[in-house]
Amino acid sequence: MEITVSRKAHFNAAHRLHVNEWSEAENAAFFGLCNNPNFHGHNYDLIVSLTGEIDPVSGYFVDMKWLSQLIKEEIEDRFDHKNLNLDCEEFKTLNPSTENVAVVIWQLLNKKINIKFKHLKVTLFETERNFVEYNGK
Amino acid sequence: MEITVSRKAHFNAAHRLHVNEWSEAENAAFFGLCNNPNFHGHNYDLIVSLTGEIDPVSGYFVDMKWLSQLIKEEIEDRFDHKNLNLDCEEFKTLNPSTENVAVVIWQLLNKKINIKFKHLKVTLFETERNFVEYNGK
Amino acid sequence: MEITVSRKAHFNAAHRLHVNEWSEAENAAFFGLCNNPNFHGHNYDLIVSLTGEIDPVSGYFVDMKWLSQLIKEEIEDRFDHKNLNLDCEEFKTLNPSTENVAVVIWQLLNKKINIKFKHLKVTLFETERNFVEYNGK
Amino acid sequence: MEITVSRKAHFNAAHRLHVNEWSEAENAAFFGLCNNPNFHGHNYDLIVSLTGEIDPVSGYFVDMKWLSQLIKEEIEDRFDHKNLNLDCEEFKTLNPSTENVAVVIWQLLNKKINIKFKHLKVTLFETERNFVEYNGK
Amino acid sequence: MEITVSRKAHFNAAHRLHVNEWSEAENAAFFGLCNNPNFHGHNYDLIVSLTGEIDPVSGYFVDMKWLSQLIKEEIEDRFDHKNLNLDCEEFKTLNPSTENVAVVIWQLLNKKINIKFKHLKVTLFETERNFVEYNGK
Amino acid sequence: MEITVSRKAHFNAAHRLHVNEWSEAENAAFFGLCNNPNFHGHNYDLIVSLTGEIDPVSGYFVDMKWLSQLIKEEIEDRFDHKNLNLDCEEFKTLNPSTENVAVVIWQLLNKKINIKFKHLKVTLFETERNFVEYNGK
Repeated sequence: MEITVSRKAHFNAAHRLHVNEWSEAENAAFFGLCNNPNFHGHNYDLIVSLTGEIDPVSGYFVDMKWLSQLIKEEIEDRFDHKNLNLDCEEFKTLNPSTENVAVVIWQLLNKKINIKFKHLKVTLFETERNFVEYNGK
Repeated sequence: MEITVSRKAHFNAAHRLHVNEWSEAENAAFFGLCNNPNFHGHNYDLIVSLTGEIDPVSGYFVDMKWLSQLIKEEIEDRFDHKNLNLDCEEFKTLNPSTENVAVVIWQLLNKKINIKFKHLKVTLFETERNFVEYNGK
Repeated sequence: MEITVSRKAHFNAAHRLHVNEWSEAENAAFFGLCNNPNFHGHNYDLIVSLTGEIDPVSGYFVDMKWLSQLIKEEIEDRFDHKNLNLDCEEFKTLNPSTENVAVVIWQLLNKKINIKFKHLKVTLFETERNFVEYNGK
Repeated sequence: MEITVSRKAHFNAAHRLHVNEWSEAENAAFFGLCNNPNFHGHNYDLIVSLTGEIDPVSGYFVDMKWLSQLIKEEIEDRFDHKNLNLDCEEFKTLNPSTENVAVVIWQLLNKKINIKFKHLKVTLFETERNFVEYNGK
Repeated sequence: MEITVSRKAHFNAAHRLHVNEWSEAENAAFFGLCNNPNFHGHNYDLIVSLTGEIDPVSGYFVDMKWLSQLIKEEIEDRFDHKNLNLDCEEFKTLNPSTENVAVVIWQLLNKKINIKFKHLKVTLFETERNFVEYNGK
Repeated sequence: MEITVSRKAHFNAAHRLHVNEWSEAENAAFFGLCNNPNFHGHNYDLIVSLTGEIDPVSGYFVDMKWLSQLIKEEIEDRFDHKNLNLDCEEFKTLNPSTENVAVVIWQLLNKKINIKFKHLKVTLFETERNFVEYNGK
């Protein structure tokens, strides 16, 4: 019996959309307000979903205490109350678009996820109206 | 790296569930309160989801400004503050059930979506408790 | 010990903002899209709040089963899946603006509320972003 | 045209996570606060999703009145305001983890679902932050 | 400049509505399903609001870290994953209706609140649709 | 008949909690993570509430188109996608705590509000769990 278990978390961060290889004018034209050199910010909501088999004895597929602790250590402690562009190695050269932030979160979590959790998916809300999903494919 | 990007929008509209080929009694029996000849209405919430590859330079798969503008022009301007049965060509002969409204929205958006966005899905909430998803399959 | 108890309910209705004494042009200019002669509609969310003393024996101020039944009989059965302008006596000559709908709901409930419930307040959401509060003062 | 129609419902219940075959110490270590012998409880939110073809005449795939009535009879009447461990046959020997509750709900609904509804999925929220999805595979 | 600062928290608990002085039949008739002798449960959402003056130097009226820690120590650690009737001294003889739980929370917090915070209000949601407010008056 | 009309809006901004008169160590000790010199950010939700009399002819107290346009011009255009500390004159010397941001928003709106709207209140959510209310008293 394959089941998907999801845990919701969040973090607050500043960022700026900017491609280093482009001129200031190109960046401003492409990213608009999101290119503000002084940064803006978001309350990011994150849903982490794992798919696998229920253990027939415990009735658990995933221990939520373990999953929420993993998200805290790998994602919240790393990104919460940070400037993604200035404070975070992951985005020193990578533009912190919602798409890229979601992929980086997936990669950070995937390294720590045991082989038995076959499918890892992350859903990242930049705002209530804008969100992306990435599952490593 | 394939990613799904979603944008939430909304519109307010009146409608009546009614099949022209059926008698009044058949319509009333089948659709109940939703068949009120004077119409009722909803705040529709719409989520438009596109799946494709992240551009490695910009870090964007979809420009949210473009997507929200597309939804405004194709869907909100067409259906917001309208009577779906009386004001909208799409539902002159087609019953505006949530299922049919979702399919029509998918078809209207799909005409304007570039080939590179492989998967288009729409999720339409008629109320917080009733919603449908359609992806063109 | 004075406490306020609130119950949330909802109903879906069509309406048109229109003042009978004004010309079509005046109505269109003043109410814009909300003046559509074919109506539009909303999912109305309603919060009914009563203030009074907790009964020291039962620990209840208000029995929620009674309050939710009262709202159903007086408000939901009257307005749900209706056209406020055409189907409802209350709005035959009164413009169904959110303000007026809230006042009418307050008046309908207040007639049925026992003297011991000193303060009655209604909060009516026309959309998630637009709402009004009325307490009879 | 294949479409997915979803209906949201809810029920409030008490439960205790406990494996009868384990010692008290093992249960306490594994389940932590969720093993409280006096139980704790939740407002469960449930989303039931069915996938199939739209009827070309009525424009319905699923009649929401039928679906909400089915969920009421099969799930809400059975579990609402109950103690899952003590009151419900389904969990007399099965640990009522969110995973197991979701599977039981799927099985109860699936028995009543006609063959034409090809895919049944349930999404069960134990809290706003913890939820599971099960589709019978 | 007087301002109100609010912090949202939550806890999950089991309870049973029951008045010890009443017969089983009287309790069952009055409280209905909420009188289940085996208990049921809720995800309680709690909003704690304090009113007072902004400190002109720090720009803070209340330090949210202090307030969230206070709520954790006084309320969440006491009631989360508990059976209110069996595990909590406060409800050994007091019926844990939403009204009474809100008053008890107000009293527990008020003992720890400094005189400078003139107004303390608690808003307690038993479900998304049922909630009470108490401010000590 | 006095009524309160509310409109919800939002903006995304970066900020840093910092008192210029304090040392770096004092700021870090007092504000913790919120003192990050590289800033962090939020999706701010704003509710603007006005209280006054319903116009007996139009049924409006406030024209929502006017109110939402006022909020856009005075608040959203000023703060959205900005760094409150670096980009906004209002917070060059004033610490952008939630309390202070709410007061500044109230002052900016109050200058533009006609005398007939007697009571202006703003509710500002820094996160879903932290919010403040200010009404000019």
